[in-house]
Amino acid sequence: MGKIICTGLGPGDPELMSVKSDRIIRSAGHVAYFRKAGRNGQARRIVGGMLAAGVVEYPMEYPVTTELPFDGADYNDALARFYDDWADRLVEVAAGSDVVVLCEGDPFFYGSFMHLYTRFQGRVEVEVIPGITGMTGCWTATGTPITWGDDVLTVLMGTLPQDVLERHMREADALVVMKTGRNLPRVRDALAAAGRLGDAWLVERGTMPDQRIARLVDVDAADCPYFAIVLVHGHGRRPEIGGME
Amino acid sequence: MGKIICTGLGPGDPELMSVKSDRIIRSAGHVAYFRKAGRNGQARRIVGGMLAAGVVEYPMEYPVTTELPFDGADYNDALARFYDDWADRLVEVAAGSDVVVLCEGDPFFYGSFMHLYTRFQGRVEVEVIPGITGMTGCWTATGTPITWGDDVLTVLMGTLPQDVLERHMREADALVVMKTGRNLPRVRDALAAAGRLGDAWLVERGTMPDQRIARLVDVDAADCPYFAIVLVHGHGRRPEIGGME
Repeated sequence: MGKIICTGLGPGDPELMSVKSDRIIRSAGHVAYFRKAGRNGQARRIVGGMLAAGVVEYPMEYPVTTELPFDGADYNDALARFYDDWADRLVEVAAGSDVVVLCEGDPFFYGSFMHLYTRFQGRVEVEVIPGITGMTGCWTATGTPITWGDDVLTVLMGTLPQDVLERHMREADALVVMKTGRNLPRVRDALAAAGRLGDAWLVERGTMPDQRIARLVDVDAADCPYFAIVLVHGHGRRPEIGGME
Repeated sequence: MGKIICTGLGPGDPELMSVKSDRIIRSAGHVAYFRKAGRNGQARRIVGGMLAAGVVEYPMEYPVTTELPFDGADYNDALARFYDDWADRLVEVAAGSDVVVLCEGDPFFYGSFMHLYTRFQGRVEVEVIPGITGMTGCWTATGTPITWGDDVLTVLMGTLPQDVLERHMREADALVVMKTGRNLPRVRDALAAAGRLGDAWLVERGTMPDQRIARLVDVDAADCPYFAIVLVHGHGRRPEIGGME
C-alpha cells in the first residue's frame, strides 16, 4: 500500500527546493503534475534532469478552455470532473506504490493540489512537503526585505473587484498581488487610487536565470503574464526591537 | 575578497532547508547567527551536525534586556550599537573569506538579518538565499490549505494595537498572527470581536518532532511562547478555476 506525497517545488530554481523534496523526487517511481494541454508545464520543467530512469509520468492536463467561457458553470463542471478523474486514478496507482505529486511553490498556498487533496481524504494516506512560495522567490529577487518590524502584509489576487483591492492596499503596509495578467489594469488603478503605485514592482520568474524586475509604472499592461507578481515592500511599522521577548 | 551569504534555514526541520542552503552551510568556514545570551539559539540548533570541522562560529548575542525596558529608547540604542558592531566585524571577516549568516525561516520576511543587511550596503557583496517561512511550516502542520481561490491572506504581528488587529481580522479571509506570547490575550480578544476566534489555531514548532497544534480557544494564555503562530484558514473566496489564464 503506497501513499501520495505532494512535494512543494519552490519558486523555480531547482536548488531552492528542500533537501527532502529533492531526495523524494530523485527516487520517485511515479510522478504526477498539472500542465496545460500540449505544454511541458513549469512543474515538470523544474524537475528536468532529476527524475530516475523508468519513472512513470502522469501529466494531468487541464481541460481545454477555448470552447467554454473561462468563468462559466460548464467550465467549472469540466474542471470538477477533471479533478474527480485524476483523484480516482492516483488513488488507484497508490494502491501499488507511492505517487509523488509535483507542486510549484508551496502546496497549501493557493495550490491546485488542494482540489486533489480534498478528494483524497479518507481514501489514501497523503503527505505534504512544504516549499518556498513563489512570492518569497520574487521578494528575494528584488533585494529588499518585504516586511520588518510590525509591518502588516496582505496577499491579494488580481481577480478581486477593484474596490476590494483598493481597500486592502490602503490598509496594509506590504502587498503581494498574484494572478495579474489581464487583471493588471485593474490592479494598477487600485494601487494608484490607494497611493501605492509609485512603490510597486512587477517580478516575473523570481530566482530563475531569466528573472525580470521592473517598476510597475514602467510596465506595459499588454506585457504582463498571469504568473507575474506585484510587490510593495513594507517600511517597518515601528522600529524592530529583535526577537527578544 | 569574500562575501556575506545569508541562508534561510526554513521552519525548523533541517530537511526543509533548500538544497542550496544545505550545501553552503556544510562547506562554510565562517558561520554567524543570532541568539540570546547564554542560549544555543534556534538557528544554531537547526544546523547541529551539519557544520564542517574547524568552522569558525560567530554567535551574535542580543544585548541583555533585564536592566532596560524592552521598548524604551535606551534599549533601541543598545540594539543599534549591537547591529553596528556586528556589521563591522562581519565585513572585516568577509575581507578574507565568505561568511555564512544563518537565518530562521526566510531572511527577508520579518528577519533580524535586515538590520545587518542595511548596514552592509556598499561595503560588501551580499547574497540572500530564501527559505520556507515559519508560517508555511505551521500551516503545513495543520494539514489544511491556508488559502485557495481568491482568498485574501493578511499577516499580523501580535504587538499591534487591538483595533488594528480587529480591523484586519474582519477584512481578510485567511490570517497569520506572529509575535504572540504575552500579546495572546489581545490577539484572542481581537479575534473574538471579529468573529474569527472559533476558527483560530495555535501552532508551535511546526514541522519539528515536538510540534504542537491546538484550537486557540483551548490554549491557556500563560502557555503561549512568543514564537507560536496563530492561523485562521481561508475557505476559498469563490471557486478556484485553475491556473488556466
